[in-house]
Amino acid sequence: MTNQAIEDLKTYVGGLQDLGHVMGLLSWDMETQMPPAAADSRGKQMGILSELHHQRATADTLKHLLETAEATGSNAPVDKALLREVRRHYDHATKLPQAFVSELTEVTAKAHHVWVEARQKQDFSLFEPLLTKIVAMNRQQADYLGWEGSPLNALMDLFEPGLTVDEVDRLFNQLRAPLVQLVQAIGNSPHHATWPFDNERFAEAQQKELTVKVLETMGFDFKRGRLDKAPHPFCTNFSINDVRLTSRYHEEDPFSALLTAMHEGGHGLVEQQADMALERTPLPGATLGIHESQSRLYENILGRSLAFWTYLTPAIKAMYPECAAMQRLEAQDIFRLVNRVKPSFIRVESDEVTYNLHIMLRYELEKALIENQLQVADLPAAWNEKMQAYLGITPPNDSQGVLQDVHWSGGMIGYFPTYTLGNLYSAQFWHTANQDNPTLNSDIEQGKLAVLTQWLRDKIHRHGQVDLPAGIVQRVTGQALNAHYFLDYLWDKYTPLYQLSETPSYKTTVS
Amino acid sequence: MTNQAIEDLKTYVGGLQDLGHVMGLLSWDMETQMPPAAADSRGKQMGILSELHHQRATADTLKHLLETAEATGSNAPVDKALLREVRRHYDHATKLPQAFVSELTEVTAKAHHVWVEARQKQDFSLFEPLLTKIVAMNRQQADYLGWEGSPLNALMDLFEPGLTVDEVDRLFNQLRAPLVQLVQAIGNSPHHATWPFDNERFAEAQQKELTVKVLETMGFDFKRGRLDKAPHPFCTNFSINDVRLTSRYHEEDPFSALLTAMHEGGHGLVEQQADMALERTPLPGATLGIHESQSRLYENILGRSLAFWTYLTPAIKAMYPECAAMQRLEAQDIFRLVNRVKPSFIRVESDEVTYNLHIMLRYELEKALIENQLQVADLPAAWNEKMQAYLGITPPNDSQGVLQDVHWSGGMIGYFPTYTLGNLYSAQFWHTANQDNPTLNSDIEQGKLAVLTQWLRDKIHRHGQVDLPAGIVQRVTGQALNAHYFLDYLWDKYTPLYQLSETPSYKTTVS
Repeated sequence: MTNQAIEDLKTYVGGLQDLGHVMGLLSWDMETQMPPAAADSRGKQMGILSELHHQRATADTLKHLLETAEATGSNAPVDKALLREVRRHYDHATKLPQAFVSELTEVTAKAHHVWVEARQKQDFSLFEPLLTKIVAMNRQQADYLGWEGSPLNALMDLFEPGLTVDEVDRLFNQLRAPLVQLVQAIGNSPHHATWPFDNERFAEAQQKELTVKVLETMGFDFKRGRLDKAPHPFCTNFSINDVRLTSRYHEEDPFSALLTAMHEGGHGLVEQQADMALERTPLPGATLGIHESQSRLYENILGRSLAFWTYLTPAIKAMYPECAAMQRLEAQDIFRLVNRVKPSFIRVESDEVTYNLHIMLRYELEKALIENQLQVADLPAAWNEKMQAYLGITPPNDSQGVLQDVHWSGGMIGYFPTYTLGNLYSAQFWHTANQDNPTLNSDIEQGKLAVLTQWLRDKIHRHGQVDLPAGIVQRVTGQALNAHYFLDYLWDKYTPLYQLSETPSYKTTVS
Repeated sequence: MTNQAIEDLKTYVGGLQDLGHVMGLLSWDMETQMPPAAADSRGKQMGILSELHHQRATADTLKHLLETAEATGSNAPVDKALLREVRRHYDHATKLPQAFVSELTEVTAKAHHVWVEARQKQDFSLFEPLLTKIVAMNRQQADYLGWEGSPLNALMDLFEPGLTVDEVDRLFNQLRAPLVQLVQAIGNSPHHATWPFDNERFAEAQQKELTVKVLETMGFDFKRGRLDKAPHPFCTNFSINDVRLTSRYHEEDPFSALLTAMHEGGHGLVEQQADMALERTPLPGATLGIHESQSRLYENILGRSLAFWTYLTPAIKAMYPECAAMQRLEAQDIFRLVNRVKPSFIRVESDEVTYNLHIMLRYELEKALIENQLQVADLPAAWNEKMQAYLGITPPNDSQGVLQDVHWSGGMIGYFPTYTLGNLYSAQFWHTANQDNPTLNSDIEQGKLAVLTQWLRDKIHRHGQVDLPAGIVQRVTGQALNAHYFLDYLWDKYTPLYQLSETPSYKTTVS
């Protein structure tokens, strides 16, 4: 029996998804294809689409369709998820007064320019007044949306539904000391790999050829997707059957473009492997945290594993027959090269061990700001203090410190934790994947990457956002999210790599 | 002094242009970038945009803004043209009942599939019922739009504003006999060039490199445009600053991709060289006929001239140093190769001499159909009879005859004459360009193609559609359109090429 109220809602929401996807295409085109002089006209085109999208997302028609469907109800999990997500989006689009949204758009547009200038001039004081305004407006936004416990809960919920400071604090308290300990232990190790290339150049065409081969082996379907170049790599999609990856190529480094594409390919598989029944609803894909877990699983857990390089080393050596330094490398050598750990000032350049300390620092500062326990004027000092405590280094200036990320100038507070959540999810999923597939490691050594991809499709991707993140973790792994899986993954991998002799503190204490 | 009513109308119409350009981007992406499996989702996205565009194009808001602006009036030519074009589009969008438009969309969607099948099976009878319906609906459409003289006037006006059967008959009566005579004279000549290549392959990368060089020399601005591959080449644009050409490459032919790109480049320059003051109005660009005059001017009059090959022959020989056959060619040889004339069944494969006879045939049949002087059942026989009369050949089957073109299945009756109009305009503009620039031929021999492009920009492109076609021809050339310029161009070019001794009949009779 068809539920007519649900069907009517789906038809309306389908049009809304279409408009969102058209906006996505305009952005993709702008980043990858558009002639540079067309920026102004593209801005106008985005403007009118954004206006039409907003009208449709806040229309009384939608309110009535949604209320009717909610009143009718449905026991089907997909229908329930549809009602939940449409309600979330509708409430978010309508709870904020139009004047507030307009002001926030204006403030962040201005803040972006000022942030670029401040970063260039290494002068936080230029950015301070606007960041103060942005923090206040985010606090106001939390009040409009409603919150319990901490105003940050309302903001984080926008990026990862259901996430709370209690949960983040619980996880980050598990992580903090063992990560600091691991960073220090690696820092003290004499067994750091030396970069073997000097003036060698690895041509973009070869890098792309290998990248496509690996993406295909991962199971990315090029009949339903593409790979293009973009200065800031991303993945976007306009349908389950139209998923577009981007990567960038550094000719002096034969590994980074590949790992970047595997990261984006992980995002891409989440979208491509959704059930077609979810097409034109808000349900394919995943929350930011779950999405990031898949990209990091492919980039780090798979792409930086010995098993993967056991498979790929012959292929990468064959790609550059005239590079003597490459010909000397074995799988173990590349494994070491792609897992070099070193504290750095810049988050996006950091390795998988130090990365989460960058995130924890940002989360703790955001929380203090939004809860009025820290003033924006005191932010640079607080930043540098935490950098010293967590990574043992102090930025030489604010451009390499508090000014490095674009997020705050864009008004995004509460976004950063999703990156670390992704790492935690990925390790816990990986643990279960190996339990379910006892020969997974040797499958990967033989290039059978599709074993992993199919498991992820069946367990996670095909269901899209039918469950919330906590429900997905519970369903797939049989328990709630636990940071120990990620800590175990790191310590187990890096102990032999750096010949560490220390026992991780978290294993000797009850937690 | 600003005219507020005009400004308000411009703002509204700007949004309509934006939506149209977004639809253009979706189509461009579909033809050049989109993964094949995404066709269904793209159809839905086009559907909702088309709905939103139609709503905005027929809204009472527009009616009121337009009436207010018309009542206020303006003496500025750009304002007057704006009012004229907005009125044209609004009337066209509102004069046809919605039920009629929906039925036509359905009929043509079905007709397209049936036409593909009929063409494949060489069986006109499959297509006949739907074509009968399409002719009747076009007649009905003419009645909705209103017409005088012939219902075809209303239909042609949709493609070339102001064009009438009286005008087309006048021009085609000038053309018919001299073209048939020229085709016969060339057919009787023993001086046909022999294709010098056999198994040689001209790599796509080299062909593209030369194409880009020529487009740049023509003045096409790649900071405000691009060139991509598409199976059916076209030019589209989403702004004066975002003009996209496509071409296709045949590796056995080193000339065809270049000439195709020059054709599309001509279209592209019309858009790129419009005054920025016309941005986001319906006024940049040109009617179909004027547009086609520019593409054919670059493709045929320039790209198939001896002067152009005097310039480009060294470059094309340098592009293929290992091809002995290419190294033996001189400018005069290539000039002969790209100007081979031979009657053929298929319009899109025909040369610039026979091409217009293909068009005249179609126009005459369309006119007879729409004026009820010919039944669709009798169309194949009428087609073949005219082919024999004009080109001296009879198609072996209807797929190579009456079924060859996509236009009628798409509901387009009255479109074909714009192709020949383009040829006639181009020759008359070319005549004036040479009068205004006495050294134009030697400029082209030296690769100074920009001399022509700048003249076209100043005389035609920058004004967009401020004037109607007849006004443009009068303004630029000082007289009305006259087919003799085109006939002179053809006879002057082909008489030495084929060493003809005949005197063209039109020069010996008063016309």
